[in-house]
Amino acid sequence: MSLLTVGTVAFDSIETPFGKADKVIGGAATYICWAASYFCSHQNLVSVIGDDWPVEEIDALNKQGVDTDGLQIIEGQKSFYWAGRYRKDLNQRDTLVTDLNVLADFDPVLPENYQDSDYLMLGNLTPEIQMAVIRQMEKRPKLIAMDTMNFWMDVALDQLIETIRMVDVLTINDEEARQLSGEYSLVKAAKKIFELGPKYLVIKKGEHGALLFHDDEVFFAPALPLLEVKDPTGAGDTFAGGFMGYLAKTDDISFENLKRALIYGSAMASFCVEEFSLNRLRRIKPEQLQKRLSQFKNLVHYNL
Amino acid sequence: MSLLTVGTVAFDSIETPFGKADKVIGGAATYICWAASYFCSHQNLVSVIGDDWPVEEIDALNKQGVDTDGLQIIEGQKSFYWAGRYRKDLNQRDTLVTDLNVLADFDPVLPENYQDSDYLMLGNLTPEIQMAVIRQMEKRPKLIAMDTMNFWMDVALDQLIETIRMVDVLTINDEEARQLSGEYSLVKAAKKIFELGPKYLVIKKGEHGALLFHDDEVFFAPALPLLEVKDPTGAGDTFAGGFMGYLAKTDDISFENLKRALIYGSAMASFCVEEFSLNRLRRIKPEQLQKRLSQFKNLVHYNL
Repeated sequence: MSLLTVGTVAFDSIETPFGKADKVIGGAATYICWAASYFCSHQNLVSVIGDDWPVEEIDALNKQGVDTDGLQIIEGQKSFYWAGRYRKDLNQRDTLVTDLNVLADFDPVLPENYQDSDYLMLGNLTPEIQMAVIRQMEKRPKLIAMDTMNFWMDVALDQLIETIRMVDVLTINDEEARQLSGEYSLVKAAKKIFELGPKYLVIKKGEHGALLFHDDEVFFAPALPLLEVKDPTGAGDTFAGGFMGYLAKTDDISFENLKRALIYGSAMASFCVEEFSLNRLRRIKPEQLQKRLSQFKNLVHYNL
Repeated sequence: MSLLTVGTVAFDSIETPFGKADKVIGGAATYICWAASYFCSHQNLVSVIGDDWPVEEIDALNKQGVDTDGLQIIEGQKSFYWAGRYRKDLNQRDTLVTDLNVLADFDPVLPENYQDSDYLMLGNLTPEIQMAVIRQMEKRPKLIAMDTMNFWMDVALDQLIETIRMVDVLTINDEEARQLSGEYSLVKAAKKIFELGPKYLVIKKGEHGALLFHDDEVFFAPALPLLEVKDPTGAGDTFAGGFMGYLAKTDDISFENLKRALIYGSAMASFCVEEFSLNRLRRIKPEQLQKRLSQFKNLVHYNL
C-alpha cells in the first residue's frame, strides 16, 4: 500500500553532550520517509526545500522508493534550518535558531497521483497545512496519523482541534496529552481525546517508551536501553515512520497490528538515536532489525 | 522465609494537585512492610518512633505478620515528620518540612532473633545506619537490597559506596544511576555499578516503570496507566516491599524470579498511588492483585 507523508525537510545543527553536527540532513518528513522505507516500497512526499538542498539527498530518497514529485523546490531561497542544543539528560533541548525560510510560505500541493494514497502521515507542522493536505485527498485514506506539539496548542488551538477531528491516530507526548485534555491521568486524557475524533492515541515518551490507547485498551512499547545514545533528534519522527511504514506494508489497521507497528516504530527509533542525523538510519540491515525486535521481545518477557 | 526491613516510620503531610493529607501514616519502612505483608508472613522491622506514634498502627503491623521488637520507641520525643508538595506533573516535589526528631540519633539495634533473617531490605537512610544493620547480621542474608538517593551521593559518597559494595541489589532512579556512575547510558551505568559489587541494579522510573539490569541482561516492568492517581508518596517503597516480599516468599533469587518480583512490586505500587498514605495498601484483595497482574501482562503483550 502507498504511504503519503507531509512534513519538514530541513538542515539541522545539533549539539548534544556527546558531540555536535553542523548543518546536517534533518526534518520530520526526512526521518519519517527513511524509516518507513524499510517496510513500504511506495511512498509519496509532500514538502518544500530551497535550491540549497543537495540533489543526491533527493536521489537517495527516490532510491528508497519515495516519490518526490510533491517536493517543491523554491529557486533562490533557502531550506528550513533549525539549530538546537540538548541538555545533559537529553530530555530537554533549547532551540538556538529557527530559520523558516521556504517553510514560511509553504502551500502544499498534492500531485494527482498522490491523492489516492492509502495511508497518510501528517508530520508536525501548522494545523492549516495538515488540514490542507487532508482536504486535497480524492479518497479518504484508510488511516490518517497526525503528529503535533504543544506550540500549536498554545497558538492555534481551534485549528488544531479542527484538524484532530479529521484523523484516526494522534501522536503526542505525555505532557502534551495532559495539556490538550486538561487531565493528569493518561487514561482520562485518552478518553477526552477520543471524544474529539481519533480512535487511537499514541503517547511518545522518548527514552521511556510509548503508549497506545484504543477504546478501553492500552498497550505499552518500551524503549530499549542502549549502550550508545548520541542524538535524540528525529527519534519521534523515525518512530512514526516505522509505525506507518509497517501499517502500510501489512495493510491491517486492527488494534493487534497497531501494537506490532508500535514495536516496529520503537525499534527504528532505537537505531536513530545511536548516531547523528540519518547516519544510522541509512544503513539498517534486515538481520539487525530482526535482532533488535528480539531484544524488544526479551525486554518485557516473563512467566508468571 | 523471613524479611528484615530497616527504614523510616514517619508522619507525612502531603499536598498533590488532587488533594491533601495532614500528618498521616508514612515512612519508607511502613510502606515496605505493608506491601511485603501480602507475600511474606514473617517480617522483622528495625526503626524508631516517638511516643506520639499510634499504638493501633503497631498492632496493625503485627497483625500483618510484622515483628516490631526492633522498633524503638523513644519516650518524650516525636516521630520523624516530613511535609511536601508535589508539582503539577507529580514527578517533582518540594520538601516543606523535615523534622528528624527521633531519627537524628537513631542507632539501629537488631534483636537477636532478627540476626538470621533470610532477606534484608535497607530502606533509604544514611549509609552508616544501613551499614550498621548489615554488620549486625549473624549470617549473611541470601539477598540484600538497598535503596538510596542522590542526597547521600552529595553528602556521604564514600560511605555510600562502601555500603553499596556490601549489597546484592541497588534500587535508585535513572537520574541517580547517571549521577553515581557518571554515565548517561543506563547500560553503561549498570556496568559501572556492578563493578562496585551489586549483581542487580533496579532503576525506578515512577510512572515510566522500572528496569532490572543483571550481567548483560535487562528486563523492563512498565507502570500501569491508571484512571486515578492521587499521591505518589511511598510508591517506590511499596515497589521495593512487593519486590522483596515476593522474593522472600518464593525464596528464589534467579534472574527469572527477580523479573517476576519486579512485576509484583510494580503491581503493588500501582495500588499505592491511587489513594493517600496507606489507605489503598491496607485493603488489597487477592483477586484485585490477580486482576492487576493480568493487566500488566496484557499491557506489553503482542505477537510478532
